[in-house]
Amino acid sequence: MLMDKKKVFEYIESSFDKHLNRLQELVRQPSISAENRGVRECAELVKRHLQDLGCDDARLVETSGNPVVYGFYDAGAAKTIIVYFMYDTQPVDEPGWTVPPLDGRVVDMKPFGKCLVARGAINTKGELGAFLNACESITAVGEEIPLNLMFVAEGEEELGSRHLPEFIKKYMDKLKEADAVFFPTADQDQKGKVQMALGVKGIVYFELELDGKGWGYGPTEFDVHGSNKAWVDSPALRMTQALSTFTTKDGNKVLVDGFYDNVIPPSKEDLELLEKLEKTFDEEIIKDEMKVERFIDDVHGKEALLKYLYSPTLNIDGIWSGYIGPGTKTVLPYKITAKVDVRLVPNMTVKEVIPKIRRHLDKYGFKEIKIVELEEGYDWAKTSIRESAAQAIVKTYHELGYEPEIWPHMAGSAPFCMFNRKPLNLPFVEGGVGHGARAHAPNEYIVVEEGGPTGGLITLEKSYVAILDNLSKML
Amino acid sequence: MLMDKKKVFEYIESSFDKHLNRLQELVRQPSISAENRGVRECAELVKRHLQDLGCDDARLVETSGNPVVYGFYDAGAAKTIIVYFMYDTQPVDEPGWTVPPLDGRVVDMKPFGKCLVARGAINTKGELGAFLNACESITAVGEEIPLNLMFVAEGEEELGSRHLPEFIKKYMDKLKEADAVFFPTADQDQKGKVQMALGVKGIVYFELELDGKGWGYGPTEFDVHGSNKAWVDSPALRMTQALSTFTTKDGNKVLVDGFYDNVIPPSKEDLELLEKLEKTFDEEIIKDEMKVERFIDDVHGKEALLKYLYSPTLNIDGIWSGYIGPGTKTVLPYKITAKVDVRLVPNMTVKEVIPKIRRHLDKYGFKEIKIVELEEGYDWAKTSIRESAAQAIVKTYHELGYEPEIWPHMAGSAPFCMFNRKPLNLPFVEGGVGHGARAHAPNEYIVVEEGGPTGGLITLEKSYVAILDNLSKML
Repeated sequence: MLMDKKKVFEYIESSFDKHLNRLQELVRQPSISAENRGVRECAELVKRHLQDLGCDDARLVETSGNPVVYGFYDAGAAKTIIVYFMYDTQPVDEPGWTVPPLDGRVVDMKPFGKCLVARGAINTKGELGAFLNACESITAVGEEIPLNLMFVAEGEEELGSRHLPEFIKKYMDKLKEADAVFFPTADQDQKGKVQMALGVKGIVYFELELDGKGWGYGPTEFDVHGSNKAWVDSPALRMTQALSTFTTKDGNKVLVDGFYDNVIPPSKEDLELLEKLEKTFDEEIIKDEMKVERFIDDVHGKEALLKYLYSPTLNIDGIWSGYIGPGTKTVLPYKITAKVDVRLVPNMTVKEVIPKIRRHLDKYGFKEIKIVELEEGYDWAKTSIRESAAQAIVKTYHELGYEPEIWPHMAGSAPFCMFNRKPLNLPFVEGGVGHGARAHAPNEYIVVEEGGPTGGLITLEKSYVAILDNLSKML
Repeated sequence: MLMDKKKVFEYIESSFDKHLNRLQELVRQPSISAENRGVRECAELVKRHLQDLGCDDARLVETSGNPVVYGFYDAGAAKTIIVYFMYDTQPVDEPGWTVPPLDGRVVDMKPFGKCLVARGAINTKGELGAFLNACESITAVGEEIPLNLMFVAEGEEELGSRHLPEFIKKYMDKLKEADAVFFPTADQDQKGKVQMALGVKGIVYFELELDGKGWGYGPTEFDVHGSNKAWVDSPALRMTQALSTFTTKDGNKVLVDGFYDNVIPPSKEDLELLEKLEKTFDEEIIKDEMKVERFIDDVHGKEALLKYLYSPTLNIDGIWSGYIGPGTKTVLPYKITAKVDVRLVPNMTVKEVIPKIRRHLDKYGFKEIKIVELEEGYDWAKTSIRESAAQAIVKTYHELGYEPEIWPHMAGSAPFCMFNRKPLNLPFVEGGVGHGARAHAPNEYIVVEEGGPTGGLITLEKSYVAILDNLSKML
């Protein structure tokens, strides 16, 4: 049965205010998993939205951590997709926000027009709300969603999806009935170009910790007067010695033994994709979004792409010790902590990372430095452009008048491997015509107004309708 | 005219509650110079106390920073001493306080008995209040203070006494009329042993700062998504490289060229003092106060003393970058800052430090790392035990039944050089029989109750009276 997309699109156009409200409601409900702030309340909110859509079976599935919101929309269709969402967000502690990050304010931002500026706006409550709006628009005009939808909204994506595997194990029988996984995103850049990523890097996140108690040297319980450095060891100075052994002087080559052992060169398919990507890749936009003057070693073009996509990394996400307030306070800190993430490219694995870091510390004599694992980590994931799910996304973009810029994968990480690799082995695709930026940074936003260089909320919702339509025909 | 000390002592004994109230009033008035919190209010409070004592000339002397409280008590005496005070304190941000740090609570602490537990209790509002109590006790019983007192209470000691030189310049004519400088302290250790220090190390305090803007590499304005480490440089990793060049791997030997050039061996007088000191020095008490298991290289006895007193140091007081909250947040931080202090021993000078640090950074290729000077710094200071001011303190301890443990100087720093070295060249002594600890740390305290292993508030006040008496006879 063919869907009357025109009727659905008209409904979307006339529902802007109501639809925007749904996004605002979602971002106003805090769900900061790192701080366990509002997480369950947000899960309940998502469940209500799934029930409103008509999921008979909508529920919170408990795990050892935050619940997964599961919902099944039975369209009586031949094909079924898993719709993967996350309902948690990053913290809002970073300075530089020009609006309160949980207020759901709509702000005029040049050159885009009106934008929703809030934590989660683009990562990823904006898309979550927009996708639900799109589904609701189909049923509101008396049409039927062309696929059965198995919603999986997790609440620990920002914690590394620690307990998603528990859910997947528990729901394996249902999940394996799906034909593909779709993650609603908003993939236009600042200028309106549509980007499409076919996978993600993996990640391992941990803390390196040293205190006087663990070391046997230095203050063990509290920071002491700084003058004692003359006869008492400094965990902070010691840690800088350890951290400095991890990389070359520029911080860019990792010196951990065997770190690069399992890195394989780009595949033939990747190289084909890169050849096209190189032609449309606009590095200046990317640098401008991040306010970065130049890439590492001032590389450009294909060289920059190769670095971005095929380098595993070791990064300090945060470090702290002692007195970090204004002015002077002379203390000898008893403890120092560094948060570190390692990104994995094919064929590296999560399980090889911590043992290598441990061996490295031991080799250099830093046996006293503790590794605290903060998340399970997840492996990289990739879907071939030849998969019909991927082709359905490409077709949608063509129909809507866009030539997508296809990326073999992103440098970011997401738990796609849990669906995309063993045992489910499902094609995993993402897509959507819209724009937002500054995930994990101040003034995160999603464009909601039409008429600027990118699509707004209406365009985004229409693109989801079209994607569902094409997936139903091509899977 | 001889003072009737017995009458004064009886008055002190009967005034305990009132006198304790003065200390509580002082610690309850915040005066956190690093945060500019309550500083001027505290200066006014100290001024009122000086007026109450009978200083006709008591005033706030403005500087480019916090005011100095100056007061002159004219006893019509032959000799005049400067009484040096500080009325500012460290911040109260450190965790681990078991009482609110500005409440002025009196807590029973084993084995001492009742203690005032508060920020500033020992560093140094407790002694300030006790000294004023002692002076007031002399006049209250109809006796006369045996010396003219020139009170100088500064409000930026914890900021490195940045603007004290302005005051000294302005008041030079008055200050040079003084015969000595006395700093009221409480110098018993946990077990009641009286310690006496004849000087201090110097200090230079600065921040090392690196951001993408100053470097030309890395994010310049805000932390960006951590996945960008693959193609964007990390100021945090770069800084750990720079910090690691400052010391040997254990963090204990400074590798800055020329750092030790001006260090001279202990003088003959120092070595004589050390020979005695070694016999009574109780390292276990010191380690227990700091909760330190062992000193650097596990040294003991004289070796530990030599390290403590004659080593210049480079210390990380604090370091921070990126996300420092709970859980995981993957960011590539745009900026990292480290607070560093360098302690100076004879004959090092303040002015040699920053140029050497700069040359070191440049030599290792870290030209992009900025040095932000947070204070002027001050030089070391030492007073000979042969000075009559020092002998007056020793005599007082003997009279009160204590054999002082004499330290050639402390490893801590204080602006004594401004009085003790050019141009004033005044003998600078400190003293007082009482106990407190945890300056710059949580649960800072001063013992107020008698009967434990140390003196309480009454003993402390009596010792100040006796010191004034002996100074008046011996100067």
